[in-house]
Amino acid sequence: MATAANTSGTVDRDTIERIVREIVAGQGAPQATSQPTVTSAAPGSRPADLRVSISARHVHLCDEHVETLFGPGHTLTPMKDLYQDGFYAAEETVMVVGPRRRMLPTVRVLGPTRPFSQVELAFTDSISLGLDIPIRHSGKIEGTPGCVLVGPRGVVELPQGVIRAARHVHMNVACAREYGVSNGDVMKLRVESEQNTVVFEDLLVRADETSKLEVHIDTDEGNACHLDQATHVELLKQEEEACACH
Amino acid sequence: MATAANTSGTVDRDTIERIVREIVAGQGAPQATSQPTVTSAAPGSRPADLRVSISARHVHLCDEHVETLFGPGHTLTPMKDLYQDGFYAAEETVMVVGPRRRMLPTVRVLGPTRPFSQVELAFTDSISLGLDIPIRHSGKIEGTPGCVLVGPRGVVELPQGVIRAARHVHMNVACAREYGVSNGDVMKLRVESEQNTVVFEDLLVRADETSKLEVHIDTDEGNACHLDQATHVELLKQEEEACACH
Repeated sequence: MATAANTSGTVDRDTIERIVREIVAGQGAPQATSQPTVTSAAPGSRPADLRVSISARHVHLCDEHVETLFGPGHTLTPMKDLYQDGFYAAEETVMVVGPRRRMLPTVRVLGPTRPFSQVELAFTDSISLGLDIPIRHSGKIEGTPGCVLVGPRGVVELPQGVIRAARHVHMNVACAREYGVSNGDVMKLRVESEQNTVVFEDLLVRADETSKLEVHIDTDEGNACHLDQATHVELLKQEEEACACH
Repeated sequence: MATAANTSGTVDRDTIERIVREIVAGQGAPQATSQPTVTSAAPGSRPADLRVSISARHVHLCDEHVETLFGPGHTLTPMKDLYQDGFYAAEETVMVVGPRRRMLPTVRVLGPTRPFSQVELAFTDSISLGLDIPIRHSGKIEGTPGCVLVGPRGVVELPQGVIRAARHVHMNVACAREYGVSNGDVMKLRVESEQNTVVFEDLLVRADETSKLEVHIDTDEGNACHLDQATHVELLKQEEEACACH
């Protein structure tokens, strides 16, 4: 599949994403001079540590689609826990097929299951698949393009649900209070590195009672800011400037 | 080569880059709601139009290497003029080979020739090639990784010269004066779009007597900010905030 050595002149996304995931996990990062979880210099009582994770393309499935794709009675098998408690990358992968038979052969399923299925891609993934996808908050899929999911035991045609997930930050409500923001607000993420500092605005705040502080950006965003080279990462209110000290 | 339909599950970079180049050129952009050359709302006497172009991976060659790669007496054949006067994409392409025989089969040569050869890649290209490349200003290649270039008539081993080119803005000195910057300074580029505004700091000013105002970012940066969806593009001094009106 896509794990073969890259000799075709196209970018082997799986390789990139594996490397990026290793970097994010701090496991044998080939170029890492720092981990993406770096100390925030935000003033006052703000949280001291800010984890920035790169979400590679993935699929959320409903129970019914798990059974259609993987067989009657099948449930997802957790492979690796994600940072947020209760969430995991599953052993299961699906093929995502777009128009004109373009496809992504191995897209990871994340668990647990949800009330409806959804595919989250980066911009380059969507071009690869031949789809024009909008940026949406997770779960807001009305009017988005569909696709076909292919599993080992069956096929599901999604009439909608393929999105580029809006970048976002998970936090609990106490943390949100410290930042002076509420669920649904937007913030700015400043990723500082040598000659390559990038500020991502429009970072959606997803605050609830239990989430840990964690920013999710996609692979395109992670590559553009070269996250593994970051020397400093900072969350700012949308109207706020970075610390003068940086 | 890499122009085949993408059915392998890897991203077809040539397709992406072709689309991006078409978008930049304003030719039949599949998703474009605006062109990257948009009116700047910068206050005062600043230039009214700001062109932002995406530089796909490319190679600059010296005369000697052109002859080695393409045959004795060979000179580059202009295929398409670039926006900056006197510069062009050549008909010629080379294969760029990295460690462990990973390679990019078709990398465009830009003209005219230079005193020494240099390869400019995006971060994803470098991962694809298996190289850990630094961000450098064009021409500053001391201590950078090398590679092998393969042409139809010969091979060149570059001991150094593979870089991720620092994003930059070309302008003439009169324009630089209006912005209040000098050659070698850095600025910020703010690319505003629905739910996806990104600020690229560390944008190098390359000011001379004759250049036209034009920002160059690479494919990773262009994909992250989804440049073709941009509704507003703005150049700011490094210490300056965006207009309150935006």
